Amino acid sequence: MTEPSLKSGRVRLRRRHDRGAYDRASLYAVLDAMPLCHVGYVVDGQPYVTPTLQWREGDRIYWHGSAASRMLRATDGVQVCLTVSLLDGFVMARSGFHHSINYRSAMLLGKAEKVTDKDAKVRHMQRFVDGLFPGRWDMLRPATPKEMKATSILGMDIAEASVKVRAGPPGDDEEDYSLPIWAGVIPLALQTLPLAPDPRNLPGVAAPDHLTRFKIG
Amino acid sequence: MTEPSLKSGRVRLRRRHDRGAYDRASLYAVLDAMPLCHVGYVVDGQPYVTPTLQWREGDRIYWHGSAASRMLRATDGVQVCLTVSLLDGFVMARSGFHHSINYRSAMLLGKAEKVTDKDAKVRHMQRFVDGLFPGRWDMLRPATPKEMKATSILGMDIAEASVKVRAGPPGDDEEDYSLPIWAGVIPLALQTLPLAPDPRNLPGVAAPDHLTRFKIG
Repeated sequence: MTEPSLKSGRVRLRRRHDRGAYDRASLYAVLDAMPLCHVGYVVDGQPYVTPTLQWREGDRIYWHGSAASRMLRATDGVQVCLTVSLLDGFVMARSGFHHSINYRSAMLLGKAEKVTDKDAKVRHMQRFVDGLFPGRWDMLRPATPKEMKATSILGMDIAEASVKVRAGPPGDDEEDYSLPIWAGVIPLALQTLPLAPDPRNLPGVAAPDHLTRFKIG
Repeated sequence: MTEPSLKSGRVRLRRRHDRGAYDRASLYAVLDAMPLCHVGYVVDGQPYVTPTLQWREGDRIYWHGSAASRMLRATDGVQVCLTVSLLDGFVMARSGFHHSINYRSAMLLGKAEKVTDKDAKVRHMQRFVDGLFPGRWDMLRPATPKEMKATSILGMDIAEASVKVRAGPPGDDEEDYSLPIWAGVIPLALQTLPLAPDPRNLPGVAAPDHLTRFKIG
């Protein structure tokens, strides 16, 4: 059975079709590798792009923030664009024109909908926290109704999206390969550095596995 | 002499004013640390967010791409939002509510203008390449008129912008500090990994200093 494509005229790549994909496996690989996303929305004709964290539950994507934030207030019930990008390297070619970057990016279009059910909000927040840090939610001081009220969660169906990926060495013009110019890639990776404990941690409280084993990407 | 603020009603932080800034020094520190940006624009009422690379020349910001790309074609002469974000860490608190991220982000609003002068385009591309990799432009096979025609460069004045930064340990509710929960920060950093030479490099061609010494951030 062929899975329906996420392609539409709005997300179709206009060029470099070899770098594009419209299937859920390719899309979810990018979303699951990078919680940071950029949400685009329009207020009075002006586009805004706000960074926040996203998480996926099956075929829906969610993001959250303060109920007071411009982005959360402006995006409920409206069309948004959610983009996730990972910068994987600088591609150094033999001409300026063929310099590029290695990257993975995903662009999703859809109508954002606020989660209003109180219990559902708590479940989503647990999924978000435990998705990054398995088991953490139940170790924390429980959320209060006031805190949940101050938190907005938005979600949308993943139905219209494209993925674009570039990897590998530069693609130079054939005649340029004879030039004595160093070409190649400067690989980049977002890396986890050693944990920085809060100075106010109680004596003897150790970091749990979900932190000591945490890896991004 | 007090420098004019970049603040406006449109970029003013709606909350967490302690994390905001509207001066050029704070803004340029973020822009100069991260070439990856996300450009937001509107086509037929739909917002789009496209990742690309940005660079700064004095008080103007530029980005570029294929002349055939949707983003480059759609943004000439229109209002855009350009956002740059660095994810510096996960902030692990004693309650879900006070979990956060450490980050540096900049949001710029303005009208994008295409650079049309041929010589100016070449100068901008040199500034872009040499800004990241000093001296590289003159080592490369020179750009051809056809390549420059296929490249679009957009720029805008930096006049309306905000910066938002969070750093440091979690800020928990005072009574939660007595809980035996590990809190602190998982620091994250985009790091340069060892160079990956193109397998087609000529024998004996070494990587120049602008590559061996390259650091991002």
